[in-house]
Amino acid sequence: MSANIIDGKAIAKDIHTEVRAEAEQFEKDNGYKPGLATVLVGEDPASQSYVKAKVKACEEDGLMGIKHVLPESASQEEVMALVTSLAEDPSIHGILVKLPLPGHIDEKTVLDAVPLSKDVDGFHPANLGRIGIKGEEADFVACTPAGVIELLKRSDVQIEGANAVVIGRSKIVGLPVALLLLNENATVTICHSRTKDLGAVTREADILVPAIGKANLVTEDMVKEGAVIIDVGVNRVDDATRKRGYRLAGDCDFEGVSKRARAITPVPGGVGPMTIAMLMKNTLRAAKRQLEG
Amino acid sequence: MSANIIDGKAIAKDIHTEVRAEAEQFEKDNGYKPGLATVLVGEDPASQSYVKAKVKACEEDGLMGIKHVLPESASQEEVMALVTSLAEDPSIHGILVKLPLPGHIDEKTVLDAVPLSKDVDGFHPANLGRIGIKGEEADFVACTPAGVIELLKRSDVQIEGANAVVIGRSKIVGLPVALLLLNENATVTICHSRTKDLGAVTREADILVPAIGKANLVTEDMVKEGAVIIDVGVNRVDDATRKRGYRLAGDCDFEGVSKRARAITPVPGGVGPMTIAMLMKNTLRAAKRQLEG
Repeated sequence: MSANIIDGKAIAKDIHTEVRAEAEQFEKDNGYKPGLATVLVGEDPASQSYVKAKVKACEEDGLMGIKHVLPESASQEEVMALVTSLAEDPSIHGILVKLPLPGHIDEKTVLDAVPLSKDVDGFHPANLGRIGIKGEEADFVACTPAGVIELLKRSDVQIEGANAVVIGRSKIVGLPVALLLLNENATVTICHSRTKDLGAVTREADILVPAIGKANLVTEDMVKEGAVIIDVGVNRVDDATRKRGYRLAGDCDFEGVSKRARAITPVPGGVGPMTIAMLMKNTLRAAKRQLEG
Repeated sequence: MSANIIDGKAIAKDIHTEVRAEAEQFEKDNGYKPGLATVLVGEDPASQSYVKAKVKACEEDGLMGIKHVLPESASQEEVMALVTSLAEDPSIHGILVKLPLPGHIDEKTVLDAVPLSKDVDGFHPANLGRIGIKGEEADFVACTPAGVIELLKRSDVQIEGANAVVIGRSKIVGLPVALLLLNENATVTICHSRTKDLGAVTREADILVPAIGKANLVTEDMVKEGAVIIDVGVNRVDDATRKRGYRLAGDCDFEGVSKRARAITPVPGGVGPMTIAMLMKNTLRAAKRQLEG
């Protein structure tokens, strides 16, 4: 193993510290805290702990986190009524609707009710489109993609002029990561399940971002000597030595790939902690922008 | 020379014929024609002939084209008043604001006043963002990028699984072309002025779309044997044998590149005629969609 480990936990901690300092200054100046409302419909334990972690981070960073939980049986009207009231509430600057919503709820209509100015998740198509447009700025960049770029920048990786390859094209990760890398002047290639010779493409990558959710997809032979890898995948891999019977792994064969890469993020402890840090940053940004009008 | 010439004029003519048949049916069914309003501020001769060509195409295709011309000195309020009234006018289904607007007019504010449902130019960031999102559909795809894809499809070029390389990342051409190719399941690379070794990238392209506006940028040695090239560039090249002293040329060294390419669009007569054909298609689509509510 030779690759440097890019420590997402440590970098995320730095960001939380920065947010906290800014949030305290914000409260001093304005007499209130930046506010994030989370909306959860149903009792799924994983979603509950997801939302709980967000609200806890708010507390630690000096923001106001407010948890709204509706029963699984909530109607479209009830969900819309909540989101609309949050949209109008001046003490709420960011709204996070936990996806997926139950099957009987129309997700698109609910997300459309989140105003662009409070879309701290950055999921609105206009926010996605603006990332790629020179001279325009997205109100908010989705948290995981923003975290990927932040990891590269804070690890002093040269993005401009680099060949960057993104595996995956989801609207929450692959696509916005590609547009952000393009904005940073990388030459960007987007691969996906229909790509014919994935290895031939990834071997040209100075920066490789697997974000497809398939354990061991990227192997040693697919990586260029000296590449930097930000592994966004989170997969459960059977592991009898663990109490719960599995461990978490990214999209890379970590040990193999580490022999050739110059730097790589671990899973867990890489991109994951960054997502929540960027959400705090977005919420603070939302509060500041709403102040400016 | 061995490459097949992809005849944009002939393909555009087919599309105009299809639009005309559909527009006649539309008028028969509804008692009115799909309406396109063009907005031109100032007297620039090139812009005037651009707008004139659009309105003439409307007439030929059975649509209603209405030309609005404001003086160069028109104020922001005057331009906004016109665009707002067109936005509200139920007989107008598409609005085309000729860019660039004079320097004293805020372009973004004017474009934002064009409702998404009438954005037949497809320039709104949400329309751009939606192109890239699986399962979402843009209301309108910008006309030149849509024309590029149509040329490929109507020339029976296999896009799925192909390595597609786009040179240029403008919001009007490069970026939407890249997203459209991605939607068609190509592996897509976006190059630009900061790309380090352009030839190394373009030599991997099964489909190459130069869209950067630099004559002779793409030379024979930069092209893979058997590639298909859609040349979006339009450049003036000095030519003493022509009356006006120049000729139009794309971004490719056409003669050299033709030796290796399997098929290529000429400039003029390639992408150019497609842009206006796709605008007619978008206007017809706008009228049909507004009918559906």
